Amino acid sequence: MSDLPSIYFDNAATTRMDERVLESMMPYFTSNFGNPSSVHSHGRNARVELEKARKKIAGLLHASPGEITFTSGGTEADNTAILGAIAAYDIQHIITSPLEHHAVLHVVEQVAKSKNIRLSLLTVDKNGTIDLNELEELLQNKARTMVSLMHGNNEIGNVSDLKTIADLCQRHSAYFHSDTVQTVGHYPLDLQSLPVHAIAGSAHKFHGPKGVGFLYTKKNKKIPPMIAGGSQERNMRGGTENIAAIIGMAKALEIAVHHQTLHREEIVALKKYFKKEILAAIPGIVFNGLSGDLENSLYTVLNISFPPSDTNQGMLLFHLDLAGISASGGSACSSGARLGSHVLQGIGADASRENVRFSFSRFNTREEVDYTVNQLKELYA
Amino acid sequence: MSDLPSIYFDNAATTRMDERVLESMMPYFTSNFGNPSSVHSHGRNARVELEKARKKIAGLLHASPGEITFTSGGTEADNTAILGAIAAYDIQHIITSPLEHHAVLHVVEQVAKSKNIRLSLLTVDKNGTIDLNELEELLQNKARTMVSLMHGNNEIGNVSDLKTIADLCQRHSAYFHSDTVQTVGHYPLDLQSLPVHAIAGSAHKFHGPKGVGFLYTKKNKKIPPMIAGGSQERNMRGGTENIAAIIGMAKALEIAVHHQTLHREEIVALKKYFKKEILAAIPGIVFNGLSGDLENSLYTVLNISFPPSDTNQGMLLFHLDLAGISASGGSACSSGARLGSHVLQGIGADASRENVRFSFSRFNTREEVDYTVNQLKELYA
Repeated sequence: MSDLPSIYFDNAATTRMDERVLESMMPYFTSNFGNPSSVHSHGRNARVELEKARKKIAGLLHASPGEITFTSGGTEADNTAILGAIAAYDIQHIITSPLEHHAVLHVVEQVAKSKNIRLSLLTVDKNGTIDLNELEELLQNKARTMVSLMHGNNEIGNVSDLKTIADLCQRHSAYFHSDTVQTVGHYPLDLQSLPVHAIAGSAHKFHGPKGVGFLYTKKNKKIPPMIAGGSQERNMRGGTENIAAIIGMAKALEIAVHHQTLHREEIVALKKYFKKEILAAIPGIVFNGLSGDLENSLYTVLNISFPPSDTNQGMLLFHLDLAGISASGGSACSSGARLGSHVLQGIGADASRENVRFSFSRFNTREEVDYTVNQLKELYA
Repeated sequence: MSDLPSIYFDNAATTRMDERVLESMMPYFTSNFGNPSSVHSHGRNARVELEKARKKIAGLLHASPGEITFTSGGTEADNTAILGAIAAYDIQHIITSPLEHHAVLHVVEQVAKSKNIRLSLLTVDKNGTIDLNELEELLQNKARTMVSLMHGNNEIGNVSDLKTIADLCQRHSAYFHSDTVQTVGHYPLDLQSLPVHAIAGSAHKFHGPKGVGFLYTKKNKKIPPMIAGGSQERNMRGGTENIAAIIGMAKALEIAVHHQTLHREEIVALKKYFKKEILAAIPGIVFNGLSGDLENSLYTVLNISFPPSDTNQGMLLFHLDLAGISASGGSACSSGARLGSHVLQGIGADASRENVRFSFSRFNTREEVDYTVNQLKELYA
């Protein structure tokens, strides 16, 4: 290729792995290759490290090791939590929001239909904010209820008040699951004090490897496995443990949590700078959801609504891509991008405008923002 | 540690990764880290390689790329096939064997119970052989039927006649799933000519990485996904694709298939040698299942039944481990080993004897066999 830059502003889709993470994984690809469930030395050598990783992750989240189950990623963890809770607690009513990730939304829709469970989708306003009064009203119902509400929205960046929601659920004896895939590693989580019953984490969202995640389930709220087979993960998940990836996830979470304040400050400053520069560069910019609100949105996400433009209509992401800038429309999971975003549709975003999500990591720089804003300025000249 | 050898004879549990496999994975941990479902260049660069891997794997199995779905491993693939087929074809009768892997057996037991489906477990003789006449008789039933029978048994090594079973199922319009986790890469599979509807593969059983596998489903026999979420894998499996591991699996399968004849000859010779030496060394040796039968068992598995011995009773694996030899009782998935083997129980293996599975790979040597047989000889002196 030419001297085109390679700017990655799609960190809500996946992140670049930290070099130290890869380094931590290498022995498990070579010498320490045993099956952690084997009882001989090859197995035990892997098992010891597997349990150390579990303990480390639990510690970083103020949870107990027994509350952590390793999965193949965030989607499996969300699926397992939802289906498991519904089975274990014979759920009669599911309350969620139309802005949830499909790993939640598709599952609750399917299971509500197949098991004839009442499904309530909370109303969201044009900023994507849910109404806690409506949630409380729905919780008055005497039915056995599960609430599933995400912590940080992957598209518009809205951060929910997990503590208040969890307290509400606790007060009304509802099972509370939260898809925390966008916030694990990026925000402090104290699972000992937070009355949430299940959360999901995905390593590749915090500079760990793809193909691995975890499910946290509160110890007094047991649920059955989704993937059945061997007795791995204390019978919570069949299948040979993905030891190298688990070690990598533990390392990635350790780095993320230990340097959280610093990384957060850096990325907040970058997002603030991007916001200021783009507002100055192009008239008529607005921000989708709460992503323009630095206090109430993920510091990693800025979802920009560009004014209608004949030259860019439907082509903005393509133009950015040609300029060496990777950003996205909706979530990567729904490919086809902009058109398919149920989140932007859910908040009634203006489809005649170009909506682009820029999402940041500690590997991004001001120079990348400058270049990107300049490119956008030219496209909107 | 001392100068203790480190002999790995547990290749049915997991295998050492091939160096070339690791090498093929490395770029996806570093520069090519994009989410294959993203539409920008970072995503496309990963996507192109993902689809090349799918095409390669399909080609090696004489399947079409659209018939291959990537999963987190063999267990997930087996679970998905079984639950998917039951849902898609409204199955009324499941026929399987008591010697299946738990990734099959636990799922069919659970789903048969929860959906009130008739479950028939085939009779097995003392060698673990099923009766094809009994299968045919059960298939006469007019109910919509699913048959799940493994290709190679992971504990006693019995290899089933996949072609005959598949033909029987076809003749009686039954859905046929086979857990082929122990044979993918080790035996030729021609999925174009074989009328099997679904099979499962797991990369770490053929010197690929852990945490990745695939599900093959015949193109005219669609099933729904188990893990729901984004539209990845043509809506067959939600969750960000584990690109590095998938690339590694394709490389591992390529090596395995291209050198299959050579590797097989080498390992057959090793197993034959082990068998001869152990028979000469210890009186009263017998082999569990068909594993002593070089024609009708996995060339990778030799499951030895040692005569009763006061000094070794319940301690043989431990003694081997102390001597630097990793072998196993049952499958790794059921840890606790010997006591827990439902396969050995299923064939009525003598529990007063010590039953040890030795499983081989192309990385094993005659010197390792010599050392192991010598150690066993001393233990039985």
